[in-house]
Amino acid sequence: MVKAIMHGCNGKMGQVITGLVRDDSGIEIVAGIDKYRGVENTYPVFDTLEACDVEADVVIDFSNAAAVDELLAVCAERVLPVVLCTTGLSEEQLQNVQRISEKTAVLRSANMSLGVNLLMKLLKEAASVLAPAGFDIELVEKHHNLKVDAPSGTAIAMADSINEALDNEYVYNYDRSKERKKREKKEIGIVAVRGGTIVGQHDVIFAGADEVIEFQHTAYSKAVFGKGAVEAAKFLAGKPAGRYDMSDVIQF
Amino acid sequence: MVKAIMHGCNGKMGQVITGLVRDDSGIEIVAGIDKYRGVENTYPVFDTLEACDVEADVVIDFSNAAAVDELLAVCAERVLPVVLCTTGLSEEQLQNVQRISEKTAVLRSANMSLGVNLLMKLLKEAASVLAPAGFDIELVEKHHNLKVDAPSGTAIAMADSINEALDNEYVYNYDRSKERKKREKKEIGIVAVRGGTIVGQHDVIFAGADEVIEFQHTAYSKAVFGKGAVEAAKFLAGKPAGRYDMSDVIQF
Amino acid sequence: MVKAIMHGCNGKMGQVITGLVRDDSGIEIVAGIDKYRGVENTYPVFDTLEACDVEADVVIDFSNAAAVDELLAVCAERVLPVVLCTTGLSEEQLQNVQRISEKTAVLRSANMSLGVNLLMKLLKEAASVLAPAGFDIELVEKHHNLKVDAPSGTAIAMADSINEALDNEYVYNYDRSKERKKREKKEIGIVAVRGGTIVGQHDVIFAGADEVIEFQHTAYSKAVFGKGAVEAAKFLAGKPAGRYDMSDVIQF
Amino acid sequence: MVKAIMHGCNGKMGQVITGLVRDDSGIEIVAGIDKYRGVENTYPVFDTLEACDVEADVVIDFSNAAAVDELLAVCAERVLPVVLCTTGLSEEQLQNVQRISEKTAVLRSANMSLGVNLLMKLLKEAASVLAPAGFDIELVEKHHNLKVDAPSGTAIAMADSINEALDNEYVYNYDRSKERKKREKKEIGIVAVRGGTIVGQHDVIFAGADEVIEFQHTAYSKAVFGKGAVEAAKFLAGKPAGRYDMSDVIQF
Repeated sequence: MVKAIMHGCNGKMGQVITGLVRDDSGIEIVAGIDKYRGVENTYPVFDTLEACDVEADVVIDFSNAAAVDELLAVCAERVLPVVLCTTGLSEEQLQNVQRISEKTAVLRSANMSLGVNLLMKLLKEAASVLAPAGFDIELVEKHHNLKVDAPSGTAIAMADSINEALDNEYVYNYDRSKERKKREKKEIGIVAVRGGTIVGQHDVIFAGADEVIEFQHTAYSKAVFGKGAVEAAKFLAGKPAGRYDMSDVIQF
Repeated sequence: MVKAIMHGCNGKMGQVITGLVRDDSGIEIVAGIDKYRGVENTYPVFDTLEACDVEADVVIDFSNAAAVDELLAVCAERVLPVVLCTTGLSEEQLQNVQRISEKTAVLRSANMSLGVNLLMKLLKEAASVLAPAGFDIELVEKHHNLKVDAPSGTAIAMADSINEALDNEYVYNYDRSKERKKREKKEIGIVAVRGGTIVGQHDVIFAGADEVIEFQHTAYSKAVFGKGAVEAAKFLAGKPAGRYDMSDVIQF
Repeated sequence: MVKAIMHGCNGKMGQVITGLVRDDSGIEIVAGIDKYRGVENTYPVFDTLEACDVEADVVIDFSNAAAVDELLAVCAERVLPVVLCTTGLSEEQLQNVQRISEKTAVLRSANMSLGVNLLMKLLKEAASVLAPAGFDIELVEKHHNLKVDAPSGTAIAMADSINEALDNEYVYNYDRSKERKKREKKEIGIVAVRGGTIVGQHDVIFAGADEVIEFQHTAYSKAVFGKGAVEAAKFLAGKPAGRYDMSDVIQF
Repeated sequence: MVKAIMHGCNGKMGQVITGLVRDDSGIEIVAGIDKYRGVENTYPVFDTLEACDVEADVVIDFSNAAAVDELLAVCAERVLPVVLCTTGLSEEQLQNVQRISEKTAVLRSANMSLGVNLLMKLLKEAASVLAPAGFDIELVEKHHNLKVDAPSGTAIAMADSINEALDNEYVYNYDRSKERKKREKKEIGIVAVRGGTIVGQHDVIFAGADEVIEFQHTAYSKAVFGKGAVEAAKFLAGKPAGRYDMSDVIQF
């Protein structure tokens, strides 16, 4: 049974993960870290990781950028593997992640969902077969009406994944309404739909001569990111120092 | 039984319609018009409508813009209703259509498919209920990789149909990748996907709080446009002079 | 401003509705009814509707079958309109609903979602145009892996809605794997998919010659049923005695 | 340049392949075999393969079961690789295929489409990751209203492919309307939709906790099967004796 510390245990994602771990016989939360105490947990909660003396195999982090520096310092010192899910890290912090990963195992990914990361692996394989056979590649993503950026980071990551399999020869086209011309062979169209409370849907289309193959991922709630983090923690426990991402977690 | 003249009978769409009419007990082709004679038909074929002395109730036209002027002149003279499916008419020709429609019945539509035209009627109703209830409206269209314009004329016609039901207060957004901002309430996003040999797919999305309603039309071949023309011909036979379109053909 | 009493205010749906009403300027909850008191509300809560002396225009009910008899009796006595969302009523209770509706306005529907009910109206119109034009009608519904019945009540309600528009001449086919034969013209195939935590998706397919039209409804959470109940309450306030359903709420 | 003999060259698929090969610089048809002569070809046509003395690297067969015995005998004798696309072979003929494959290369597949066969490879990988992570697997296939069998052979082949990756522990469920019970973990639901002229659509659904991944293949015409046969022929030329299928053609 993997022993995990939940860093940011009383935030929304911390509680989601607490619930997920409760139903998982392969992992347990032995301690939580959070300065906010408005939630009751079955495990002891500490203000900082520094203050936490409970022995553990891995840390799952869903906190905030300001809390990450101290987290990384303690993980390095204790050689404690860490699944780093906090987003919005500064360039300096990202370099720090790199340095820390020489001392302990650090896992970080653009999207923590198991499904999305599996899909990225499969898209590479699909692209390497279908693009040479003349299939065109297009991507449609849909998100809620409050999202300010378009296309989504996950859509770009998927396209990058595909492009990597195609020697990075493809360019991305975000808008075809400005020109009257036929589609270029080596482009990937990426378009964004915004509406309602859609959590996130990504649809990758391979369109060939009289046949179309589509790969679609739909998230119904943010819990999917928690689930991925739990799988990542089980994977990372006991691993040697180094950088990891979700594609390492998924073994074919 | 409606008696129809097929104008452009030996072209691709003329032959599609010849096949469709063969299986339809409500209409028959009594004569064809085509200068090209490389096809055998069960009905007599004439070089021009002028030269055709077979009595008929309606003309179905799928020819080319150059042939349309003479067609319209003869239809006006004989008070012969005409389903005009040839595209790419000049501004002058469109004005001519308007003049001729004072003398005989003329039916013309952006898209001849029964399904697309039905959908446009339903979209108006859906929009008038869902938009006030806070649903966002978005449109994704997909076509083959040789199509030079984007978005498709049908996508624009669908959006116009919706907008009409909403007092034309909505603006169209073709590209959200240029700005970092939340979706505006009174906009309709319209995006285009291009790939392979996709004949035409239109997907209208109404996205609300925790629910999404989608209306999707998929064309599998250009025959769907022929089918609509046949229904239109049956409708138009016997109608008084005036402008008609496919929405008149579909009666709830 | 419509004044509503929330019957079953501390249950899951009662709290969802409490949240929705908070953001709605056309309705407010003036009192709640619930024997369970583990939740804090901004409105007074009573054990029974009998005990509640707060004046109101309408009752929204999401409680349980056992609580419905008393609810209906009090609503009839006070001539208080009621939106009845509790499911699993006995045959006897349903007859009671009918009796009560002679004294006050009662609204009850198989599915409270605005989208689903709009769709049912549109499906009728679509069927009455497309079925005579030779389109086949099929229905695919998807729900989570704990749902015990198949197909869903909403799928059946949708098919009934379509069938009503077609003089009830169609029969339903739930399984085509048992026989080797071509599809019958006057049947509606209805199939069920079960998996994961899918909240509910219904897809109605009209398949014709080379064209397919699909109408799809996706629920992302049970909140959509709450939203429909709130709209229904605003509609029902002030209405005369009688039976109502969601299709009355949706005005084209 | 691969030299191919088209066995059944004047049938519908023979002509589709003739057209596809014309645009392919890696393969040419050097002779055709067909007793029917109503079509003009640019290559010589013979009544039987026996009678054909043109040298070739491979035979593509889209004929009929009655013609297959002689075809196989001649291929074995001449050590001529053969892509066998004729369906409806008897049990005896299938055993004959096995015997012949000891003398020459024989390629045969349930579905010749490149896309479907790629998908089957990817589905195996997806299943081996997602099933252990708790995802449920379901399959929806759609075909035209004249198809007499359900579910389609391709749907079964896809399910078998998935099941193989899961130690064949899963059973197939074709109808959930007969019982009131929760979904079994180790089952794959397979349902069939029939309507209009749908050429063939297969949708494999992996439904997990709050996320769904779908893999969809849509055929727009039977040409996709021709395209796969051409790729198979290019692959098979020069290969040693043995049994091959489309998964050998697709190299990751």
